[in-house]
Amino acid sequence: MKPETLTQPTLLLDEERCRANIQRMWNKVSQQGIQLRPHFKTHQSWAVGHWFRDMGIDTITVSSVGMARYFERDGWQDISIAFPVNIRQMNEINELAAKIKLGLLVVDHSGVEALGHQLHHPVLIWIKIDVGTSRTGLMADDIVALDKIVDALRKYPHLHFAGFLAHAGHSYHARSVTEVQRIYDQALAILMELKARFISTFPDIMISLGDTPGASMVTQLGPVDELRPGNYVFYDLMQYEIGACHLEDIAVAMACPVVAVHPERKQWIIYGGAIHFSKDYLSLPDGNKCFGRMVALNGTSWSTAQTSESPYLISLSQEHGIVQCTDQNFELHKPGDLTCWLPVHSCLTADAMGAYVTTDGRAIDHYRERLHL
Amino acid sequence: MKPETLTQPTLLLDEERCRANIQRMWNKVSQQGIQLRPHFKTHQSWAVGHWFRDMGIDTITVSSVGMARYFERDGWQDISIAFPVNIRQMNEINELAAKIKLGLLVVDHSGVEALGHQLHHPVLIWIKIDVGTSRTGLMADDIVALDKIVDALRKYPHLHFAGFLAHAGHSYHARSVTEVQRIYDQALAILMELKARFISTFPDIMISLGDTPGASMVTQLGPVDELRPGNYVFYDLMQYEIGACHLEDIAVAMACPVVAVHPERKQWIIYGGAIHFSKDYLSLPDGNKCFGRMVALNGTSWSTAQTSESPYLISLSQEHGIVQCTDQNFELHKPGDLTCWLPVHSCLTADAMGAYVTTDGRAIDHYRERLHL
Repeated sequence: MKPETLTQPTLLLDEERCRANIQRMWNKVSQQGIQLRPHFKTHQSWAVGHWFRDMGIDTITVSSVGMARYFERDGWQDISIAFPVNIRQMNEINELAAKIKLGLLVVDHSGVEALGHQLHHPVLIWIKIDVGTSRTGLMADDIVALDKIVDALRKYPHLHFAGFLAHAGHSYHARSVTEVQRIYDQALAILMELKARFISTFPDIMISLGDTPGASMVTQLGPVDELRPGNYVFYDLMQYEIGACHLEDIAVAMACPVVAVHPERKQWIIYGGAIHFSKDYLSLPDGNKCFGRMVALNGTSWSTAQTSESPYLISLSQEHGIVQCTDQNFELHKPGDLTCWLPVHSCLTADAMGAYVTTDGRAIDHYRERLHL
Repeated sequence: MKPETLTQPTLLLDEERCRANIQRMWNKVSQQGIQLRPHFKTHQSWAVGHWFRDMGIDTITVSSVGMARYFERDGWQDISIAFPVNIRQMNEINELAAKIKLGLLVVDHSGVEALGHQLHHPVLIWIKIDVGTSRTGLMADDIVALDKIVDALRKYPHLHFAGFLAHAGHSYHARSVTEVQRIYDQALAILMELKARFISTFPDIMISLGDTPGASMVTQLGPVDELRPGNYVFYDLMQYEIGACHLEDIAVAMACPVVAVHPERKQWIIYGGAIHFSKDYLSLPDGNKCFGRMVALNGTSWSTAQTSESPYLISLSQEHGIVQCTDQNFELHKPGDLTCWLPVHSCLTADAMGAYVTTDGRAIDHYRERLHL
């Protein structure tokens, strides 16, 4: 890497750390006989996708129709869109369904009816279950709604009932293995009960779980058929706080120039703000917010030694980042220096940046969902 | 507008509202004999820039070197970069300085020395003053540092001392005309004192202030030489809460499909999340967060009637938005409907979306700072 060539906020990607994350999860999940369908919404990158493909992975998850199209164009043939089906995109869904093995999520029977009438190609239909996150999905005890969906599915031979799918996103509030294990066990138990209820009439149905804390921290993953973690490809400070990774596993970091220093409050200003990092934060014990924490750039990547005591981003505005230092580390940098920052939420930071530079200097693509002109 | 053609999150721009905002500020500021140098970091768009140019405005502010280059390519010839000079971008700054009248910000004498040695073309140098926001800038009473900067400036004939510049960003915490007026008066007084101190040796120096609340809410703007508000081009829910605009002045809104409804908690799920809205929020009196509030799409734009009671975005994840409804308005929409949302912070939402569609159906560009591949 040549940090001296970087002049503005740049998202660095350490291929070695990233491939190790991909490998570790693949080993763990496949050794337990479970299907791994990694969520590509974190990296959103053809190039990073190839690192999964190198491992023999050919089933993936995405979070939008556009992202599915992006990866289909790179040859991915088995894609689940883990987002409630957006029936306004029926044309694009039809085009995808004609080309690949496509998995879709439904949360009510009206979605099934819309797909039943307007889709012309076979797809897999997952019923999204709310296992406690309260974002979306059916409650598992809402038997009336479940039966309505399943009855609707029976009417349409091109809609293949794939099974029950959940994302235990409330694991992001956990801060220990015990808590993550409890959330995982509860989610798995809910899906197993549903599977047991329907397996006699639908012998092929599966259950699919997804969150990175569960997939990383639970040792014995149990009788789950499929896992869809995504964030583990990069990890971040949030996952570190939960306990899902070590600091040295985090595979992306933001390189940002220092543009001002303020000795009286022991703060630096970096060129790197909300439009680069995004605004997710961790709450520190002293009540301050942390939007990122400094690591030390070295010749080939960055070092996480002493990171827990390092300067951190206490505030972000559009292009400005305010860095809180201590008396001890304030002198480390001056205006014009390049600094390096672990992000709090790598999915959002990668999406905000829209591109990577590997630590050995290669530019790497990132999908952009929004309107291109 | 044809809302029926929109299938995914889209940032709508109402040209009529936007031009009215541009016109109102221009009238107010120019009638008081003050130079208006609107900040283009909110819209970041050639097309919207032309609406300013139509009014005779030819001096602008931006927040990055890249943004300055973007607008220079569209013919803007007088641009201030209101961000502490990033000396790692000296090559790009030199290229710009060769082409246009370029204003730069310094916060210490080392920045002046770097520019003095490495710039080959004349530029205007503003000294950034911290008037109470505690983001960046010199404290006005730090006479030693100020004199060091001014002494450094004297050494380099191509660095023209333009004056003192501040952004009273703490006005964003104000919630009344009285508070905004007080912050404005304090900031102005600080800059006036500095100007008085140096005017005898630098007879051309000016003072420049910037925030949208001050520029919108203060009636008599006083002896300020230049104003640099930016957000007023669109306004947003934050500005409405401060009291800087009416709801009907807000000129951008996000169109998002509903993908799920949850009657038991009176919530909808929309396709529209953190990567579309960004994660700035308002705190509601009941302790909930508000990331956006619904308005009613109509044939030509949107209506803000009854918006204060309308459904609001209570949570955002990557692509999901969770909408909180009441018993009364929950039935308004079902999956597949298109809904419309006023953003909390239009600068960040516009940057996240990276493009606009006008309410009469035209696609409008937005600058992208990040690496293009």
